[in-house]
This record gives sequence, structure tokens and C-alpha cells, in this order.
Amino acid sequence: MTDTGAEKTTAGAFCALADWGTSNFRLWVVDRAGNVLGRRQSDEGLLTCADGRFAAVLESHLAALGASADLPVAITGMAGARTGWREAPYVETPAPLDALYRQAVTPEGVTRPVFILPGVCQRTTGPFDVMRGEETQLAGAVASGLADGIFCLPGTHSKWVELKGGRIAAFRTVMTGELFDLLSRHSILKHSIGDDLAFTADDRGFSDGVTEALAEGFALSAHLFSIRAAGLLGGDAPKPAARLSGMLIGAEIAATRTFLPQGMTVHLVGSARLTALYGRALEIAGTQSRLLDGEELVRKGLFAAASSLFQSSEVSR
Amino acid sequence: MTDTGAEKTTAGAFCALADWGTSNFRLWVVDRAGNVLGRRQSDEGLLTCADGRFAAVLESHLAALGASADLPVAITGMAGARTGWREAPYVETPAPLDALYRQAVTPEGVTRPVFILPGVCQRTTGPFDVMRGEETQLAGAVASGLADGIFCLPGTHSKWVELKGGRIAAFRTVMTGELFDLLSRHSILKHSIGDDLAFTADDRGFSDGVTEALAEGFALSAHLFSIRAAGLLGGDAPKPAARLSGMLIGAEIAATRTFLPQGMTVHLVGSARLTALYGRALEIAGTQSRLLDGEELVRKGLFAAASSLFQSSEVSR
Repeated sequence: MTDTGAEKTTAGAFCALADWGTSNFRLWVVDRAGNVLGRRQSDEGLLTCADGRFAAVLESHLAALGASADLPVAITGMAGARTGWREAPYVETPAPLDALYRQAVTPEGVTRPVFILPGVCQRTTGPFDVMRGEETQLAGAVASGLADGIFCLPGTHSKWVELKGGRIAAFRTVMTGELFDLLSRHSILKHSIGDDLAFTADDRGFSDGVTEALAEGFALSAHLFSIRAAGLLGGDAPKPAARLSGMLIGAEIAATRTFLPQGMTVHLVGSARLTALYGRALEIAGTQSRLLDGEELVRKGLFAAASSLFQSSEVSR
Repeated sequence: MTDTGAEKTTAGAFCALADWGTSNFRLWVVDRAGNVLGRRQSDEGLLTCADGRFAAVLESHLAALGASADLPVAITGMAGARTGWREAPYVETPAPLDALYRQAVTPEGVTRPVFILPGVCQRTTGPFDVMRGEETQLAGAVASGLADGIFCLPGTHSKWVELKGGRIAAFRTVMTGELFDLLSRHSILKHSIGDDLAFTADDRGFSDGVTEALAEGFALSAHLFSIRAAGLLGGDAPKPAARLSGMLIGAEIAATRTFLPQGMTVHLVGSARLTALYGRALEIAGTQSRLLDGEELVRKGLFAAASSLFQSSEVSR
């Protein structure tokens, strides 16, 4: 392997790993054991690169880390979408997570080895669904020895995943984060919520909303308006933003009863704020949860794929 | 009663009736039997009058119909909201619909008899809820002899109402219309739906969505994303706008199972387009529906209140 020797970060570099999402870009240079030698992060996600800037953005960050010109790169996320750098067609459920690298694609016009990992789609194990990026976090869980279990990755579009024997058996996207944004900012509920979007998992409004949504007979579209009515009718109404969030997260957890095995610990992967809310909501639902580090997982998943992809090329160098 | 005699519409006029909503204003001058002598309609709803234009707008339309200066007026709708002309406090469920007039209020600074009817609120017979205007349509149903039954008034915020003995026993607002607008225009689903919002109750996508939502285990936030995924995964996906509408209306009907008696004919009150969609969805759910004319109902409800309010004053004139 060529090593310029000039940059601390590339001494002993084995490859680079990139998590390229819709609005974020993260890059790590790692050694042969997966240890991080250098790290970059920016907001140059799919949305700012879709005009053909992918190669330039990648090279600029590799250069900033002093990466050699032939350092190979493994990428996951929206860079592999139809509207991304090059489409990496979906692997279908049940999807073996240690074999994602076999469906990796290489974009045109690159001078170094670059591989984009595929996403995963569901056609038969539940409603039609897709993911790009989360499967690599789950591959990281498998690489860490978590080959079976329930995983929840909360976000704009939360993913709930059932892993069985290192495969994604089935999964479901729930539009909780996006619904919270739409309802709190653009629906009639905004007149009750106003600008006061600050709340925590300990707010009574949040636990009230979760409890409401977990109850028999709850239906999201038929309960939302009571947030507005509670504001109009006065009294000791709980904080409306907290109640809306509780309702939406509670509805999400209630929905998983219909498509996931119950009684198992849920592995939570996400931001500190969201995992605190989901952890509390799961607690109210009587479900145990365990927190996993999403950045570590995606790096491990990328590294596992890179180890398979670049082993032979490394040997040849 | 003073009659200018100059205007055809006010010959024999007994009173004027106004349905003053958020974005619409409708006015009728009627005779002692409730027959319509003159009619006006405009977009001067609450949103354009909230700066104090209520009296001027009302007088301009009354003048256009040649109404006498002392013709009394009964008003329903958002003119009675806190942000309206004058607040007419809510009557609480179970609300007797033939007695709404008893809680009517008169705005300040009017020179003729003007009464604004109250809305109805729910604090104990279900989740907190409010309505303004729909209760007068239901009063019109009671005045027509429909004192018991299930009523559905679809719209931006659909209302489902159970009438018992001429009272609103319980009701529920479902945010179906607003959710359709938000999701089809502002969520990730817009990428699948595009500008193609045209569909009918006969579209397969619509019935597919209704059927999906009526099925055991359906949860709105956990099924919406499959509309997007179906578009990405290709194949023979039904028209996404139709499927979204079907899902939302189906979810609304499914929700009523938890708070309304089942097996009864649903009285549908609304626009031709919405009642066609709801009628078809109810048919798929195995529920009979019957169409009522919303304009006729609100006029009858207003007339019943006006008859009680203005009887004595008429006698004295």
C-alpha cells in the first residue's frame, strides 16, 4: 500500500469508510484493525451533491485527511440511491448483513477503489419498504455479535428491524419524526403548540401522550385534534408539543405489536435526544431497551464490508 | 315588521340566517315558513373579517338583498369563536340541539337584532373536542325529524357525531383532510404523488387504501411509508394519491369502531366529492350511508333557532 508518510492519519491506513446520507457526510480513515486514524464530517449530503459533486466532495475530505491516492473507500447510504452517485440496487429481505459487500457497486470516473453498498428492500415480509444506511449499522451490530434481536432506529423516518441469524428478517419504516414536524409546524395544532417545542422525556405531557397512544382503541388521526381542543377548553392541559410527541412515539410502539415479536429487549440506535424519548416510551410500554452507539455501528458495518472487499487488493499491494 | 316593499327578496321576510365559517360566508333571507327569499355567498370568512369587519360585511350583504334595517339575523359558525365577532361560549355534551338559541350572544355595536349561536364542546363523553357550525347542521337534522343516529361531516377536520334524542351524545374530530394535504404536498410522499392529485372513489388505489386501513393491525404512521416504497420498488403500484386518501379515510372509519355504535346507517353531510369518497369507503366497510344536503340542514337549524329567538319580537312588531 502506498503511504505518503506525510500525514499522521494515514500512517497504517487500511481504507476509508463513508456514511453518506441525505443531509450529512461522515468519513473515517481506519487501520487494518478498524481503529480510527482520522475523521471528517460535513453537511454535504445527497441534497448538496446530487449535481455531480460526489467525487469532488469525497476527494476533498480524503485529501484533508492526507489519504493516499489509492486508499480504497467503502460507502453506505443515499450515495447509492437512484438520485445519488450511482444506484446500488436493493438487497431483498431476508437480507444477509455479512454479504452486503457482494452487491456493492463502483461509480464511474473514480481513480481509486470506491464501493457503494446496497440498501435493503422488503417486498414479501411486510408492506413494501426500503432502507439505505441503516442496514450497515445493523451489519455493524451483527459484526459485534448481535445477530438476533429487535432494533429501533428513531428519526425522521424511524426504522424497526427484526434480525434473525444475521439477516434482516423484516422491517418497518414509521414516519414519526416527519409527522411531528408537519403537525407541530404546519397543521392547526401549531396554534396550540406555538414556538414552544422544548420538552423532555420527563414531561408529563410526553408520558400522557405515550399512555394515550398505547391504550386500546387509540387511532392517531382520531386523537390528534384533542390536543387543539384541550388548548381551547383551558384547564390543566399538558404541554402540547410533549403530548404530540408522546402520542406519535406511543403510536409507533403500539404499531410494532402487530408486526414484531413482543417481550424482547429493543436495541435503540440514534441521537441522545431521540433515544431518551424512545427509551422512556418503551419503559411506559413495559419493554426494556438498550442503547447502542450508531456511529460505532455504521463504522463497524462499513469496516466488515471493507475487510471483505479490500482484503485481496491489499494483499496485491 | 318594517318592509321597504322595494325589494322582492324582503317581501314577507321574517329574518336572515348566516353560516359564517373560517373561509366562507353564506346568508339567506327567509319568510315565516323558512322559504328562501334571497341568498348571498362570499369568501369573507373569519380569516378576512377578524380585523373587525364583521358588522360591515353582514350589513353589505343584507343591503344587497334589500333587507330592512330591523330584520333580525341568526348566525352560526366561527363568527362565535374567541377570535371571531363575539365569543359564544360552547355548550357541553350531551348538548340539546333544540336549545342552542338559549346560549346565543349578541355582538356589540349592532343596530338590529343579531344573535350568534354557540358551538359545542366535549369534556366528558370522549376526548376533549370542539365544533362550531356543525352543531347547527345537526340541529337542522333534528328539526327534520332525525333526532337519533350517526352523522359524518367529512372535511379538513371531519366530525363524527352520535345523536340521541335530539342531543349530541358524543362526537369526534378526525384530522383526515388536513393530514391528506400535509402528507400529499409537504411530506416525502410528495415525491411519489407529484402533482397528480386527481382520482375518484372508483380508483383501485382508493379501495386498496381503504381495505388496507380497515384490516386488523393497521396503524397509520406505520403504513404511510409503504406508499413511497411502492413507488421506488416499481411494479403495478396503484395511484399513490388515491391510496393515501383511501388509507386516511379507511383509518378514520376504522377508528369510529372504538367510539361509535356499529351497524347503523351513517348520515353523510358534505361536498359531492367527499361524500362520494366516504360513501364508497363505508360501503367497503359494510356500512350503509345516506346523503343529506348540508346547506339545507344548516338553514333549517338556523331557522329553528331563529323561530325561537325572534318569535316574540315579531309578535311585538
